[in-house]
Amino acid sequence: MHAIGIERGKTGPRLLELPRPEPAPGEALVRTLRVGVDGTDHEVVEGGHGGFPAGEDHLVLGHEAVGVVVEPNDTDLAAGDVVAPTVRRPPPDGSNTYFERGEADMASPEAILERGIDGAHGFMSEYFTSPEEYLVSVPAELAALGFLLEPLSVSEKALELAAAARSTVTWGPDTALVLGNGSLGLLTAAMLADEATVYCLGRTDRPHASIDLLEALGATYVDSRETPVPEFAAAHEPVELVYEATGHAKHAFECIDALAPGGVAALLGVPGDWTFEVNGGRLHRELVMGNRALVGSVNSGPRHFRAAVDRLRTLPDGFVDDYVTDVVPYESFERAFADGDGGTVIKTAVEFDTHEER
Amino acid sequence: MHAIGIERGKTGPRLLELPRPEPAPGEALVRTLRVGVDGTDHEVVEGGHGGFPAGEDHLVLGHEAVGVVVEPNDTDLAAGDVVAPTVRRPPPDGSNTYFERGEADMASPEAILERGIDGAHGFMSEYFTSPEEYLVSVPAELAALGFLLEPLSVSEKALELAAAARSTVTWGPDTALVLGNGSLGLLTAAMLADEATVYCLGRTDRPHASIDLLEALGATYVDSRETPVPEFAAAHEPVELVYEATGHAKHAFECIDALAPGGVAALLGVPGDWTFEVNGGRLHRELVMGNRALVGSVNSGPRHFRAAVDRLRTLPDGFVDDYVTDVVPYESFERAFADGDGGTVIKTAVEFDTHEER
Repeated sequence: MHAIGIERGKTGPRLLELPRPEPAPGEALVRTLRVGVDGTDHEVVEGGHGGFPAGEDHLVLGHEAVGVVVEPNDTDLAAGDVVAPTVRRPPPDGSNTYFERGEADMASPEAILERGIDGAHGFMSEYFTSPEEYLVSVPAELAALGFLLEPLSVSEKALELAAAARSTVTWGPDTALVLGNGSLGLLTAAMLADEATVYCLGRTDRPHASIDLLEALGATYVDSRETPVPEFAAAHEPVELVYEATGHAKHAFECIDALAPGGVAALLGVPGDWTFEVNGGRLHRELVMGNRALVGSVNSGPRHFRAAVDRLRTLPDGFVDDYVTDVVPYESFERAFADGDGGTVIKTAVEFDTHEER
Repeated sequence: MHAIGIERGKTGPRLLELPRPEPAPGEALVRTLRVGVDGTDHEVVEGGHGGFPAGEDHLVLGHEAVGVVVEPNDTDLAAGDVVAPTVRRPPPDGSNTYFERGEADMASPEAILERGIDGAHGFMSEYFTSPEEYLVSVPAELAALGFLLEPLSVSEKALELAAAARSTVTWGPDTALVLGNGSLGLLTAAMLADEATVYCLGRTDRPHASIDLLEALGATYVDSRETPVPEFAAAHEPVELVYEATGHAKHAFECIDALAPGGVAALLGVPGDWTFEVNGGRLHRELVMGNRALVGSVNSGPRHFRAAVDRLRTLPDGFVDDYVTDVVPYESFERAFADGDGGTVIKTAVEFDTHEER
């Protein structure tokens, strides 16, 4: 079968020819429909994140997938079921307590593999196998958009953690600042748009499809080159929620000044080392005296995928049509990974097959 | 009546002669039993925190009080009821939404007064008045220890916020690191000792009553001069909960390294400005990849006082006897504020009266 992956010693994503996988006991064989591309994929391709499976010289890419069960094997799934796989898997030397209780997303990153990212093949291939417990059911009518469930689930988890941190007090969020107008930031802005006044910060020149889409949502685009995060609250208003999806390390500290008393910031970016000065006394004091909170969040679990299914049905009308800017046949995968978009690209996916009966 | 307070232009706490207050409509008159002394009182005395009521040249100290209702006035209280007052009050120009919904502890510090601390007289006087809504009922048999309810309530709130932040996932805390072996740190160590393995960090030479008390609780004293916070996890173990009560600004950042994946730090210290370098990229990444959280917490509300009443009944046997090292008749108040304790002082209180029928 064909797959899209990276190979040791070679640059860029490549078309690979691999044997079709055989499902082990407890696993189903899934025919891949679509696989989304995100910033993590670009980091993996560039070698800045993740790694090859042990003893192998290639890694199949892709962690935002939807597919159709073709061989249920000994699972309780049925042929034709549409499913989306979760990303984390136990290490080869066995399980661990986080997997046993269904909370792999809370495990230390050293204790897990991530399909398509770190140590385990992804889903960007004509077929993949997975244990049943890591396959979330997707309603058939959402099959074409099922590749959005993984990124939606990542935000579902982060917003769940943020709301939990405020669950003992009165809290909206009525106002939210999303840091980053990339694909995850935009998706989260859409998730929040019906309930909150949403600001989204970026450093993108107009015209850009992401800014048009934000404004169609009723959100306000904030250019960080004109209004950096430390000046946001004075220029606009302090917010009850910050959602950080830039990976710009200073944002984790600067966002404290954007928060209203009782506000919470969900941090999702993964920066590299960077040493800089902070007024740590003032930041510490603002956290305490304002009852503010910072909540880190990574990955997601089956519960968040199920919440994402509900969310996918209730995103603002027309949002998804404008959000998914390109779906590319897998033979043309390079287009889905292209940079330098000319202001028209938001979210791309690679298509291996359509959801049609055979 | 007599009161203990500070006066503009004079140093140290002083014995004041003031008129006995008259309860306004909705207020009760309370005869003070005991008032605890804590680090905030010392900061107020030294002029580093808080301020005088508008237009006045003195401030009655004391925010950790218990007393007996002597004039219920038009409230639903009865003469003889034992009560503990909460600390925050609306500003003179009227109420605000936080008070209206019973969440004054979540308000911006600019929007409130604090009795005995900032802009409103405290309780360190033979009598005080308070609106009924800010008086929490105390069982008569706890009257002598009721001055511990305010500091207990501060930790109840912080631990409630920390637990809420972890309420969507499996979390103990089975392991806890308390930063600071002052009176609030020790009280919190006692609150946690029955359910968690507790470490408490300080920089106090042995012998010291606080270290003896920690060890009597089964907790481990960690000398920060030998094991600073960044080295704590390697020397002992990563913990599920950090409780910061030092006000040392670097602790708010260093504690991230003491947290296990999924851990949460409750921050309570109030440092002044201090600019220093951090590896902000690494700290941001550790928050995200480890699903760690930082939760600021200040003050407390009636719910936390009520939880503190239950907690006071269930603290480890013998703890309170060793914890309250001095109760001083108010005429000798200077002893309760003395520094340089020779290793024997943990928690002091000023006594105005005993809980006896008159």
